[in-house]
Amino acid sequence: MRQIDFNCDLGESFGHYRMGNDAEVLPLISSANIACGFHAGDSSEMRRTVARAAANGVAIGVHPGLADLEGFGRREMALTPQEAYDCVVYQIGALKGVAASQNVSVHHVKPHGALYHMASDHEDYARAVAKAIADVDDHLLLFAMGGTHLASAGERVGLHVIHEVFADRTYQPDGSLTPRAEGNALITDPEVALQQVLRMINEGSVQAVDGSTLPIQAETVCIHGDGQRALEFARIIRERLQQTGITIQAW
Amino acid sequence: MRQIDFNCDLGESFGHYRMGNDAEVLPLISSANIACGFHAGDSSEMRRTVARAAANGVAIGVHPGLADLEGFGRREMALTPQEAYDCVVYQIGALKGVAASQNVSVHHVKPHGALYHMASDHEDYARAVAKAIADVDDHLLLFAMGGTHLASAGERVGLHVIHEVFADRTYQPDGSLTPRAEGNALITDPEVALQQVLRMINEGSVQAVDGSTLPIQAETVCIHGDGQRALEFARIIRERLQQTGITIQAW
Amino acid sequence: MRQIDFNCDLGESFGHYRMGNDAEVLPLISSANIACGFHAGDSSEMRRTVARAAANGVAIGVHPGLADLEGFGRREMALTPQEAYDCVVYQIGALKGVAASQNVSVHHVKPHGALYHMASDHEDYARAVAKAIADVDDHLLLFAMGGTHLASAGERVGLHVIHEVFADRTYQPDGSLTPRAEGNALITDPEVALQQVLRMINEGSVQAVDGSTLPIQAETVCIHGDGQRALEFARIIRERLQQTGITIQAW
Amino acid sequence: MRQIDFNCDLGESFGHYRMGNDAEVLPLISSANIACGFHAGDSSEMRRTVARAAANGVAIGVHPGLADLEGFGRREMALTPQEAYDCVVYQIGALKGVAASQNVSVHHVKPHGALYHMASDHEDYARAVAKAIADVDDHLLLFAMGGTHLASAGERVGLHVIHEVFADRTYQPDGSLTPRAEGNALITDPEVALQQVLRMINEGSVQAVDGSTLPIQAETVCIHGDGQRALEFARIIRERLQQTGITIQAW
Repeated sequence: MRQIDFNCDLGESFGHYRMGNDAEVLPLISSANIACGFHAGDSSEMRRTVARAAANGVAIGVHPGLADLEGFGRREMALTPQEAYDCVVYQIGALKGVAASQNVSVHHVKPHGALYHMASDHEDYARAVAKAIADVDDHLLLFAMGGTHLASAGERVGLHVIHEVFADRTYQPDGSLTPRAEGNALITDPEVALQQVLRMINEGSVQAVDGSTLPIQAETVCIHGDGQRALEFARIIRERLQQTGITIQAW
Repeated sequence: MRQIDFNCDLGESFGHYRMGNDAEVLPLISSANIACGFHAGDSSEMRRTVARAAANGVAIGVHPGLADLEGFGRREMALTPQEAYDCVVYQIGALKGVAASQNVSVHHVKPHGALYHMASDHEDYARAVAKAIADVDDHLLLFAMGGTHLASAGERVGLHVIHEVFADRTYQPDGSLTPRAEGNALITDPEVALQQVLRMINEGSVQAVDGSTLPIQAETVCIHGDGQRALEFARIIRERLQQTGITIQAW
Repeated sequence: MRQIDFNCDLGESFGHYRMGNDAEVLPLISSANIACGFHAGDSSEMRRTVARAAANGVAIGVHPGLADLEGFGRREMALTPQEAYDCVVYQIGALKGVAASQNVSVHHVKPHGALYHMASDHEDYARAVAKAIADVDDHLLLFAMGGTHLASAGERVGLHVIHEVFADRTYQPDGSLTPRAEGNALITDPEVALQQVLRMINEGSVQAVDGSTLPIQAETVCIHGDGQRALEFARIIRERLQQTGITIQAW
Repeated sequence: MRQIDFNCDLGESFGHYRMGNDAEVLPLISSANIACGFHAGDSSEMRRTVARAAANGVAIGVHPGLADLEGFGRREMALTPQEAYDCVVYQIGALKGVAASQNVSVHHVKPHGALYHMASDHEDYARAVAKAIADVDDHLLLFAMGGTHLASAGERVGLHVIHEVFADRTYQPDGSLTPRAEGNALITDPEVALQQVLRMINEGSVQAVDGSTLPIQAETVCIHGDGQRALEFARIIRERLQQTGITIQAW
């Protein structure tokens, strides 16, 4: 059986501020990355989001981020690796507490925004994040892009690493994503995106922007829930994958 | 064997700001109430404090507070009971995460400052706080003053409630503490404080400010670590209790 | 010439979080109450909002609130009056700084949410808020409901107090607003609201929920910008007032 | 008359957290850089610090920093230059508000920590910070190290730039400070520090760590107030400078 996971960032509302389309995206995904009050989310939103995800049979994940609500965790900060470790431990614990209060279990961790980039690109942050996860609960899966320091560090500490791919982003010859600033970074045609994902799943490869073919392991696809177009995009990819006999579910 | 627990608020430093005398107070106590990043503390300080407490054989407790760092969690805020529930669940989870990362377990919960008062005095907050603890982990002990809504609510949800008493505060005829604003609120003579604690332990009673005798259950004594006088005070009470054959240890 | 001011809370977005319909509400109002980063808003949003208000010829006001972003400044906090004073001074200064950077001037102050209620209902908070305004700049107008401690305190410190009324709220016999929890708190029929405002302006009175007639001074009407219904409501009231020869402009 | 200014960071306490020795350092300095609630300080502390500085005849300066209380504003954050501009405008306004409430005026701006480094080393941040100051009030002096982007940007927007030097730090041949990580970064002998400052004032030069002589303009010396040794160090330099006929006062 061929299987792929669909993951999406959820629970990003804060206080009176609403963000995202959690109710609409939940039926489309199998894994939720839930914000933990640092870059987004708050303790009440976490309770609601865990309950909604559980009610939809969606696996619950920790989405730890930098303590920068104003910048939505997208601005890199010169933390020490130890500080990165500490803030990940804390946020995993917080979400595990919320999940425990509802008798549901936590399934995975996917770092958010700048923290994801810092841990992907720098070995010291990668080690800190991976160790934080393993130290709190080594049954947690780690979502990371293949070939990054984060994926390697996760494997080294014995975590089960789930390789994340993108349906709507193009790839560089080195396996990294084409930066958003460049013109060809985004795939806006669902058919093209679908073919990219199908090839990743069926052939274990992706065509880079220069035409070269790269090996890639596709275990979870990052889905966006911001806006009706993103939702429609996800719906199409999901339906077409299911039509080809691929099961969409969490690992 | 007669036994009493000494508890103290710890880990109240934040970022570059230092507060308290944790290193000096740890050898004197048996239970630490560790701040969780809302009214005080941060994720790095929590890591350090859990490690120090564990190294000293001191039981590790959650000290959840209101999200008011500027007011040190001492200013009441008109939260809904649901919000109080949510913020306690979150903070318990956060400290459990830090403790899990060090393979130590969490022992108790004592709400901080305004949250402690709100939960002591109001049934709805008491229920919210007690249910939050029980929902996350019903093996956690709840520290509360006898006769308060918090103690009752804790018992109702099946928590083991540890009754907290004060060596350095006088009692009103209704069992409440004399407000700090009043002249006779504080006991500054260690000998008087010692006699108050001894009577609580040996006779299960305390003499109120009007001379009346009240029944009181003394299971944990609140110790202060702010300042050399407080430390000296704690040292004297501790030594004298031990000399009378009372064991100071966590429940 | 009969004149009334329309005021609305603006600039409540924060970081990546959007709130309100500032672009749509600006053409309808004459005074903007701009959030200052405590209960809502941030320094970038303040820059944008001041620029938009100035471009629309709308008077720029400070909208100071409690430092409770999660609660949107709507949860009362047990600040000391001195703390209330300090946080109002700070927020007035911050907005004056933003305004100065654009060579525009600040016109008024209207406290937000819980701070508005605390200053309306309690003399000590009223004095603190009024004094804060007068101490920073006694040319600033103070928006307050008639009959409140805030209005009185403003007058006592020599501020020009602008009396605020509500088109969409019913009044109690004592001149206070009917609490939102009660069934008859809101006026949803624009025609009824219009007649209430017209009577306030033309006759200086309002009919309370018990049928009694109260004197009331209507200088500024509080407009809501959250949702298309609120905008439509404001549009209708505005047009009808203008048709009767009333000018809508800031004092 | 030869003149030098002594500046020190003040008002860094936050809520219940105490930091620095403001009372002791105030008699030693002529300019205070007052934290504005982002990296340190709060609105009440700003009020107290402005009052203390004014009472001591010390010039009042804005000390804007990054919104990172936990990191004390020392961790670089990937703000956009526009965000840097906005946060400086806001903080200048806030302190001017506090100063206005006490009828004292604001004299200068010195960015704090990571923001100071970002603006010293990067032209875009330098321009943003300098423009923020000039846009709010172009009479404010800008404290900056000579040769930095910040000093140049300040001059370009027409600000009066006061060149800051360090008594207790060694200089690299390019005029930058020796990084703290290196062994010879700090000057701990007051006599050596004194000679460095005297040479800066009298000869307009400093000897770099490689023995080369660099031109340097010494207008304000950065003084530290953390710890008794720092205070003693400042006292010695101050007295010895005064003995040689140099006046210590703000520009």
